[in-house]
Amino acid sequence: MPILCKPSVRVPEHVITMEETLEFAERVHAGKPQLPLALRLIQNTGVRKRHIVQPIEETLRHPGFEERNRIYEVESKKRVPEVVEEALANAGVVAHDIDAIIYVSCTGFMMPSLTAWLINTMGFRSNTRQIPIAQLGCAAGGAAISRAHDFCTAYPEGNVLIVSCELCSLCYQPGDDGVGSLLSDGLFGDAVAAAVVRGSGGTGVALERNASYLIPNTEEWISYAVRSTGFHFQLDRRVPGTMEPLAPVLRDLATDHGWDIAGLDFYIIHAGGPRILDDLSKYLGVDRTAFRHSWATLTEHGNIASAVVLDALRRLFEEAPPAPGATGVIAGFGPGITAEMAVGRWVVDTPSPRGASAFGAERDFAYEAGRQATWTA
Amino acid sequence: MPILCKPSVRVPEHVITMEETLEFAERVHAGKPQLPLALRLIQNTGVRKRHIVQPIEETLRHPGFEERNRIYEVESKKRVPEVVEEALANAGVVAHDIDAIIYVSCTGFMMPSLTAWLINTMGFRSNTRQIPIAQLGCAAGGAAISRAHDFCTAYPEGNVLIVSCELCSLCYQPGDDGVGSLLSDGLFGDAVAAAVVRGSGGTGVALERNASYLIPNTEEWISYAVRSTGFHFQLDRRVPGTMEPLAPVLRDLATDHGWDIAGLDFYIIHAGGPRILDDLSKYLGVDRTAFRHSWATLTEHGNIASAVVLDALRRLFEEAPPAPGATGVIAGFGPGITAEMAVGRWVVDTPSPRGASAFGAERDFAYEAGRQATWTA
Repeated sequence: MPILCKPSVRVPEHVITMEETLEFAERVHAGKPQLPLALRLIQNTGVRKRHIVQPIEETLRHPGFEERNRIYEVESKKRVPEVVEEALANAGVVAHDIDAIIYVSCTGFMMPSLTAWLINTMGFRSNTRQIPIAQLGCAAGGAAISRAHDFCTAYPEGNVLIVSCELCSLCYQPGDDGVGSLLSDGLFGDAVAAAVVRGSGGTGVALERNASYLIPNTEEWISYAVRSTGFHFQLDRRVPGTMEPLAPVLRDLATDHGWDIAGLDFYIIHAGGPRILDDLSKYLGVDRTAFRHSWATLTEHGNIASAVVLDALRRLFEEAPPAPGATGVIAGFGPGITAEMAVGRWVVDTPSPRGASAFGAERDFAYEAGRQATWTA
Repeated sequence: MPILCKPSVRVPEHVITMEETLEFAERVHAGKPQLPLALRLIQNTGVRKRHIVQPIEETLRHPGFEERNRIYEVESKKRVPEVVEEALANAGVVAHDIDAIIYVSCTGFMMPSLTAWLINTMGFRSNTRQIPIAQLGCAAGGAAISRAHDFCTAYPEGNVLIVSCELCSLCYQPGDDGVGSLLSDGLFGDAVAAAVVRGSGGTGVALERNASYLIPNTEEWISYAVRSTGFHFQLDRRVPGTMEPLAPVLRDLATDHGWDIAGLDFYIIHAGGPRILDDLSKYLGVDRTAFRHSWATLTEHGNIASAVVLDALRRLFEEAPPAPGATGVIAGFGPGITAEMAVGRWVVDTPSPRGASAFGAERDFAYEAGRQATWTA
């Protein structure tokens, strides 16, 4: 049974408070008729502070898509290794034990993705599968967990590393001043996170079933406009209302598993915004405090996109962890509108001798570094 | 056993011949010292013609990244459904039977990816998994096959649709005039392709084992520079020499499976360029004609990125298909430098009653279309 182990999460050192967010919005968009509504919406998010990779003055400047993407590469390489190391240690494995890396990030674009650099610099085997996903947005955290679950179902001795790198502040677009854009400017934060799904052994959530759901005909509700200035996040006003159609899907997932969605022991829910959390607890009939880990990540970090579910799960581990056998659900929501969901049960490791990885030791590969092939294509 | 069924492939209606390519290169880059080498390299590719989504005059203009990406969206929506329909028919399944869509494309960027639009418009179930991959480049065709193999190993009754949409001409960058760029301008072509991997049943390649391999410290050899003008393809002069390190990896994959790489019945190899194919046949000790399907796709379509392996496999089906039990290998190569490989055996469908999909029928979902939620975030 694949086990999702304790995530590691880091937020950057630069902090912007709610008060500062409101001040900046008032200054930058002074006099615009949509500003009062946007300010009210930002205040209602309940986000107390966010963490960003650059000082706010630099964040508010747009140095061009190329430079933004260069910063993404530098900052991701600076910040991701630490959470990867910690996630491996949390799971009781080393880099060499990992068979696949699922790297999710929608806030910068590199080809090859960071997976190649991670393999080259952090001791992962050369035969590690690379699964980079850039186009599932905030739902990608849930998707990564489910795809890791699938992988370990196929290869029960496999181990998958999930990495989420969301530097949302690098997608700030000064010229975008619709209400959805202004709200987003006050909602999203930066974070990097990682977690290991072990095919067997480990303490955490034993993943038992997963599901995806696309709300029909909502593909334009959350989207990127791709321009010379980079990715422009576009948020439809109907998005906060999507828990009404998604709650029955979550309920059915639990029911299909023989569980009652209202009676689970833990809930790890994407903190897209306060209405998402409020509505979902209402429609599922669960107490607001059941979503306390999601509320905490929203309040302290803002919406950190695909890293939200990993941060909420980390908080569950750091609270008093659930008793063995406790039941729970994990759900990420994002563009599509897509829900990526999983149900599972808390397990506590009972150490046993672990076999070698399903994919064997690294090949003893006679790579001739520095061979200078010449063009003869 | 997951079966990779017959791919469907389409190339656009606009054709550019080798002679025209050479003429355009001479005109656009007249007098540059690197031109004679580039022209020689282009001639050596053996590419007789390529197909592109716009007339050549428009292809050579750069209307900006936003417009390029808009064309990508329009053209992909215009061209992908046809190959999807045909791939489903080839596999003897319908849209409703599909449990996951793996969409690979590195030549345009959309969020959500085309998967959401395909689900909304082509009758796929709302609970279809979406696995969009944009950052594996030419290796993504092989990766898609292997991830579909993994998915069907986890869910033996599952079915996966692979879609490859590579509109390489939309990444043409008029200002790039290094030898690698000029060669690329003469090498890549446009194509869309699709194929189904069935968890059980179907005629085609029964996928038995897959593997990935990253050549250490080559992450900069094939890459995108991301700029305000879009994706700039960067090709290192050492890339054509990578078959020397990769041939032993392919040999080991076969050996691990109890097979001799030199004695397989079919070879579906990424036609990155002529030296890739020449070197690999030399290092593996197989006759050049064993790669005839790869040579044919290179000659007639150019390098169509992640669609190459699907096009080569289509040609295998359309030749005299192998006898049941015939052994073969599939290998895609791309940025990383990454190899994505699989070995399998030819099987012919013996029709039997098929069970329902592993993931059940579509939920009877009370989606309230048109509900107009208002902002209360």
